[in-house]
Amino acid sequence: MGETRADAAGIAPRDEQRHDDDVIVTDAAADVEVAVRLAAASGFERSSRADRARWLTALAEALDAHRDELVALAAEETRLSPARLTGEVTRTATQLRFFAGVALEGSYVEATLDAPDASLTPPRPDLRRMLRPLGVVAVFAASNFPFAFSVLGGDTASALAAGCPVVVKAHPGHPRLSRRVVEIARASLTDAGSPSSALALVDGFEAGTALVRHPLVSAVGFTGSTRGGRALFDLASARPAPIPFYGELGSINPVVVTPDAAADVAAIAAGLAGSFTRDGGQYCTKPGLVFVPEGSGFEAALVAALADAPSQALLTDGIASAFDSGSAGLSARDDVEVVFAGERATDAAAPVVIATTVEGFVAAHEAFLEECFGPLTLLVRYPAEGSAAPGAPLADALGGSLVAALAVLEGSLTGTIHHAPGEDVVELTEALARVAGRVVYNGWPTGVAIAWAQHHGGGWPATTASVHTSVGATAIRRWLTPIAYQDAPAAVLPPELTDGNPLGIPRREDGVLVA
Amino acid sequence: MGETRADAAGIAPRDEQRHDDDVIVTDAAADVEVAVRLAAASGFERSSRADRARWLTALAEALDAHRDELVALAAEETRLSPARLTGEVTRTATQLRFFAGVALEGSYVEATLDAPDASLTPPRPDLRRMLRPLGVVAVFAASNFPFAFSVLGGDTASALAAGCPVVVKAHPGHPRLSRRVVEIARASLTDAGSPSSALALVDGFEAGTALVRHPLVSAVGFTGSTRGGRALFDLASARPAPIPFYGELGSINPVVVTPDAAADVAAIAAGLAGSFTRDGGQYCTKPGLVFVPEGSGFEAALVAALADAPSQALLTDGIASAFDSGSAGLSARDDVEVVFAGERATDAAAPVVIATTVEGFVAAHEAFLEECFGPLTLLVRYPAEGSAAPGAPLADALGGSLVAALAVLEGSLTGTIHHAPGEDVVELTEALARVAGRVVYNGWPTGVAIAWAQHHGGGWPATTASVHTSVGATAIRRWLTPIAYQDAPAAVLPPELTDGNPLGIPRREDGVLVA
Repeated sequence: MGETRADAAGIAPRDEQRHDDDVIVTDAAADVEVAVRLAAASGFERSSRADRARWLTALAEALDAHRDELVALAAEETRLSPARLTGEVTRTATQLRFFAGVALEGSYVEATLDAPDASLTPPRPDLRRMLRPLGVVAVFAASNFPFAFSVLGGDTASALAAGCPVVVKAHPGHPRLSRRVVEIARASLTDAGSPSSALALVDGFEAGTALVRHPLVSAVGFTGSTRGGRALFDLASARPAPIPFYGELGSINPVVVTPDAAADVAAIAAGLAGSFTRDGGQYCTKPGLVFVPEGSGFEAALVAALADAPSQALLTDGIASAFDSGSAGLSARDDVEVVFAGERATDAAAPVVIATTVEGFVAAHEAFLEECFGPLTLLVRYPAEGSAAPGAPLADALGGSLVAALAVLEGSLTGTIHHAPGEDVVELTEALARVAGRVVYNGWPTGVAIAWAQHHGGGWPATTASVHTSVGATAIRRWLTPIAYQDAPAAVLPPELTDGNPLGIPRREDGVLVA
Repeated sequence: MGETRADAAGIAPRDEQRHDDDVIVTDAAADVEVAVRLAAASGFERSSRADRARWLTALAEALDAHRDELVALAAEETRLSPARLTGEVTRTATQLRFFAGVALEGSYVEATLDAPDASLTPPRPDLRRMLRPLGVVAVFAASNFPFAFSVLGGDTASALAAGCPVVVKAHPGHPRLSRRVVEIARASLTDAGSPSSALALVDGFEAGTALVRHPLVSAVGFTGSTRGGRALFDLASARPAPIPFYGELGSINPVVVTPDAAADVAAIAAGLAGSFTRDGGQYCTKPGLVFVPEGSGFEAALVAALADAPSQALLTDGIASAFDSGSAGLSARDDVEVVFAGERATDAAAPVVIATTVEGFVAAHEAFLEECFGPLTLLVRYPAEGSAAPGAPLADALGGSLVAALAVLEGSLTGTIHHAPGEDVVELTEALARVAGRVVYNGWPTGVAIAWAQHHGGGWPATTASVHTSVGATAIRRWLTPIAYQDAPAAVLPPELTDGNPLGIPRREDGVLVA
């Protein structure tokens, strides 16, 4: 047997058989050590943006080519429908191609050149600054998007686009799918000429904590529970040299239906029914908290819209049992009325709608703001005291008690407003924007578009680092760090910073942005 | 007495006298409460970029107008020379004007617009994204830049430019100056039409920790010691909702003199002597570690250059005593030779140069990498084994032992290379760029230019968050968070995002950057 890459990296593999393909699948710190060292030694960070764009495109093509096999495997492991999973493969391939485009376009490196000027105080030398890859990135895959937020999901796509090797911690909800995707991905990278050790997979709880602690890991991307995310955030922050932890934890996604919008209750109720029950309500953007004006007939319309709502087997037994106990606990509260409880099939969850008053919500908001993952939404009935006259303060327009309720909200990925045409929602927007990364008007937060202007945010616990988030083009910014060259000889400069802009990327030269 | 701003914010001031001008100067959590609540209620974040640019310019003019008074006060409290302090006032005013320009130019908001496209999977709604102010920022002032990294320093200037109110924790080394600067600044803000409560000052250790813990504080900027910075980083990370902590802690600023460069030892030694002794060596960018080729005559040249080096009273008694014990401890080590020890005046520190071998450095690198704040530098003698032929590996060119020494370096603000014209320093650049935020060629890291491409970085401990740093135009990015509007009515959109780009700022529209 010839020298393996593990040998080259100075690591003696414990089990030659298993490490032959560098796919690491057991719960052991030693596997993390191999995966991280191989990734760090891969040379991936020295690749060009053009090469990485090509490799990301190859990964997208590989997903497309193996779509049927992967959807079948995912359906078995996640209980999600083949239709949904087929759409998710498309989304995941689109994300990979999107980040190929971001890498190629090149403005993300923030190339900035300042010519020397001795007349300034202090004098200015020749300064050239750009962003470069941070190092090995650890990605914790999510349960609810076995493709789009998993092995080849947005965190991985953006990190590879940035030039960072990735070690993925598999989600236990879809272990075989994870392994198969990384096999396909590594073969595709090798075929396309990329170091395949730039992408590895580890599995198990211990492997996850070892990954966050590893000195060669430079940043972490995480999508999952508030409890698990907090524990890993604390590990990352407690390191001798702490690293950034980009986590997307729980999100309640508040919705406000204004009194004037409630004129069209049937359509809004039907939209909500579709959004909070979609794929078993297992979306981080599920609307889980809806403020509805009293006496609007909204609840009756919602019950009618849910008449045919199907039950859906949840992703894992753990999630199913957490939903059962969470929804039962909320439904049994004295301050809660059960508005709708769907008939559930064996081993599946049916939609649940509960309601409380706005005073009840404020009084017990800590309990109500805990995300209940699955097809449950909480209606909060508020007295609509005023009218939404243009320029009227929020409290006049929507009632003081609603204003008090909005003030206790925590960080959320989204906030949604259903309003009437022409209604003044400026103050309401501000009240939601305080806590929500994306504000949606007369629509629903589920169904997240892939776009330059897209974004997940809203602050803790929706996002652990609200400076940069996991969705949209700027997700790449999480995996980069600036470097400045002062009076550098031309030979050491990256092509993005050399005179004459040979790569033709957007740059800022002497303070002026040139697109 | 009419209603004060403290009353308006729902706070009963404990001491009407002291709070009349909203300048908070005692060591008490209650003062932090007042300062933070007034800042949060100031409405500053709703100001326009144009207004903030005007206000920053007014602050710069106020500094210029009070230059003589402030320099005299600073010289008394910091023992720095009036010449240096006069220059620092200029730098500080320049920074304020620089960030006024950054605010006005407007590309920092990253305005991004995507038109709806129903043909995509998933369909794309109308999405518009920009950055907005994060909230109240806490700034911890530094000892060594009583203007440029203090009350109106770069952290404050960039936060105000971003639209964030600022509460400064005064440095105990210049309390009267801090108070006077904030008085002048608040008067200037009021005159210019800005809410003056957007800038406040608190003092004392307890006030500092209360600030980092306060629920309405959204981010922290800090310049200071590794120990103090780590403690505050830990506090910020342990909050129920953690906040970003942008700290600049210790930095050793390694320098490599290549064997070929050493042909010009006299000039390089004179440059080093000027750089590490400048203002008592009290710069975060002081070159504290210099790799010199054996047998190059560098040490004799350095001793000659230091013949007339003056002693300098250090900033505070605490810093002076830490320098005395630090330099004495290093000088007394068995593996260290004292190359130069200047004659010190009473109450002042004189330059110290010590030397060790490259093996000695690697063996005890943890001790040697601890920053010794003051006029001390450590020479590391390395055997120059090879020649710097173009394309030659670093180990061939500079010797394997130097490569091993560079591998143990920690994050540093700068790394400097002194090389001969045409010499291949690509690999050496990579070795330094691994740990240094700025790489300097044939120059010195002190004297930091104010420029778009400028930057402080290098990772822990030089910077606690290497994603964004405290210096250069992008320092503003630390105090911002994205928001996306989905299908928003025109009336709720900020002018940066409305159709037709009425403010004429650089924007990205449907993926294309338009400058």
